[in-house]
Amino acid sequence: MEVVCLPRLPRAAVCGGTHGNELSGVYLVRELLKEKQKVSEKEEEGEEKSVSVQMVLANPKAMQRCRRYVDTDLNRCFTHAILNCPLSEKAPYEMIRSRDLNALLGPKGSPEAVDLVCDLHNTTANMGLCFIAYSDCDWICLHIFRHLQMQMPDIPMRYIHFDVSNKESYSLDSVGKHGFAMEIGPQPHGVVRSNIYTAMKFGVQHMLDWVRFFNSGTIFEGGFVEVFTMVKNIDYPRDSETRNITAAIHPQLQDRDFCLLHPDDPLFQTFSGETLRYKGKEPLYPFFINECAYYEKGIALSLARKRRVILPAIRVQTERERQANEEEFASEEEE
Amino acid sequence: MEVVCLPRLPRAAVCGGTHGNELSGVYLVRELLKEKQKVSEKEEEGEEKSVSVQMVLANPKAMQRCRRYVDTDLNRCFTHAILNCPLSEKAPYEMIRSRDLNALLGPKGSPEAVDLVCDLHNTTANMGLCFIAYSDCDWICLHIFRHLQMQMPDIPMRYIHFDVSNKESYSLDSVGKHGFAMEIGPQPHGVVRSNIYTAMKFGVQHMLDWVRFFNSGTIFEGGFVEVFTMVKNIDYPRDSETRNITAAIHPQLQDRDFCLLHPDDPLFQTFSGETLRYKGKEPLYPFFINECAYYEKGIALSLARKRRVILPAIRVQTERERQANEEEFASEEEE
Repeated sequence: MEVVCLPRLPRAAVCGGTHGNELSGVYLVRELLKEKQKVSEKEEEGEEKSVSVQMVLANPKAMQRCRRYVDTDLNRCFTHAILNCPLSEKAPYEMIRSRDLNALLGPKGSPEAVDLVCDLHNTTANMGLCFIAYSDCDWICLHIFRHLQMQMPDIPMRYIHFDVSNKESYSLDSVGKHGFAMEIGPQPHGVVRSNIYTAMKFGVQHMLDWVRFFNSGTIFEGGFVEVFTMVKNIDYPRDSETRNITAAIHPQLQDRDFCLLHPDDPLFQTFSGETLRYKGKEPLYPFFINECAYYEKGIALSLARKRRVILPAIRVQTERERQANEEEFASEEEE
Repeated sequence: MEVVCLPRLPRAAVCGGTHGNELSGVYLVRELLKEKQKVSEKEEEGEEKSVSVQMVLANPKAMQRCRRYVDTDLNRCFTHAILNCPLSEKAPYEMIRSRDLNALLGPKGSPEAVDLVCDLHNTTANMGLCFIAYSDCDWICLHIFRHLQMQMPDIPMRYIHFDVSNKESYSLDSVGKHGFAMEIGPQPHGVVRSNIYTAMKFGVQHMLDWVRFFNSGTIFEGGFVEVFTMVKNIDYPRDSETRNITAAIHPQLQDRDFCLLHPDDPLFQTFSGETLRYKGKEPLYPFFINECAYYEKGIALSLARKRRVILPAIRVQTERERQANEEEFASEEEE
């Protein structure tokens, strides 16, 4: 069996508070920072670690106000265009903050970028624990996902793929060489629920364990992951004049994220009691059903197609392989 | 059996959006306003109604921003002191708004006040449908509650009593001659869930039906209601320096509103994983467990004592009884 060899992951980042009212990540990163401080006080200096982990509170101003954002959604500010456009002094806070974070963890797309960014999020939708990533062939993210699935069998877990190029990818996790959002719900924004916090805590622990195993030379066997690739969004029915919504998610659909939605299934219930049905022709998997923050974005739910992705076995490159690779790369450059 | 005779209730008000991000009430009042418009277009003029119902969107600015409030919590602005203090031009928006609402539905404590105010609220706590009132002997509110219990047997329903004088009562519903908040959860703020919306819709319909029955002379039999009288609030454990919370509601307590909490039962789980227990000496009933809006108020949960209140049978006063009452009142005044 062939084993794919991939570069070491010496630097990882765990980010919370990118949305200031998604509290599991806020309190988990604060807790990890406390623990790190305790450990570093105890540790002898010079001890080498298999991975250096940076903990980041991404949007402190929004956290302080317990709001998603102050001026604009930070997690849409990491496109190539926004990171590189000229900025006036009156630029939205989050546009300035995205540059600071890009300087800290990136620059995006450069060899200096952190190897792995895990950005912590919550949703009001009943989605369990989801990885959200821009690639369906990033073996690192997919293997980490598979590891969490095996370590946390009681937590419903899905891998969501947004098919967007690296240049157009807009979220904080896109700044790393590898990256994904860890999205857990249901939890109201502005609230911490112990069960959701604990799932996130274990998720992050298992992720960092995996990176340490990987860096230490463990071979991870091949296998498959079911990947949900986002197809389209559906908005709420709205009043043509006021743009107010005129219906809520149908009670038969509410909380049924990742349960196949068939043509003609109930989709909405209007405020006067009428049922509206799904008019699509293809059965698709709904997710982000009734996510609080997406009312303003015009998204009542998203729909995905599911398929199996076959993963190769992987292991870390040896030092010799790395050098050989670099030489090969250098000679290619010369040609 | 003695029947208590009470004055007619010719004017009622149903209010939503007192907290701008509690969406069931916002969308229900909008829907009722639409229906009212349709009906009044159809109706022949001069037709007499048994009750005139006013629909009020209480905090439009907060609704527009989908926030609880703009400057300060409107639902704490209806004390005698706040309604009557001098106001500068820079007064918080909600302090000005509370006077407008007091002029519209009150003045609080006066004979001109609306007969019944029902103010619609949502909570992130798993509280089902609750009435929250300042009196445990307002037979109107208690009979309406009992009527809803009988009409909606599938919805868990409780009557919460805050033992506060009329002068110090602070919420919008205190402006009416009778009044209560109808509080339904769990629902994240900023989200509408169909099941919660529908429960509220039926609750309001049954309430207004009851008022019509009452005004038309129906005799309501006596009986009892279990009343939860608020005893005290418990705050989250907090960091002494930052004031950040250091624990979440314990998973064994989360969502168990109105299940008796015994001394030494788990109360919180710290973010490092430790269990903190209830140190009170008396078993009490928890409610508003993990309500989003109460983090800033320093309330992790409230505790109540439960008891039975015996209701007398009631009916509306006849016109003759009303006149006799007025004469009696007038002669008392003369004395």
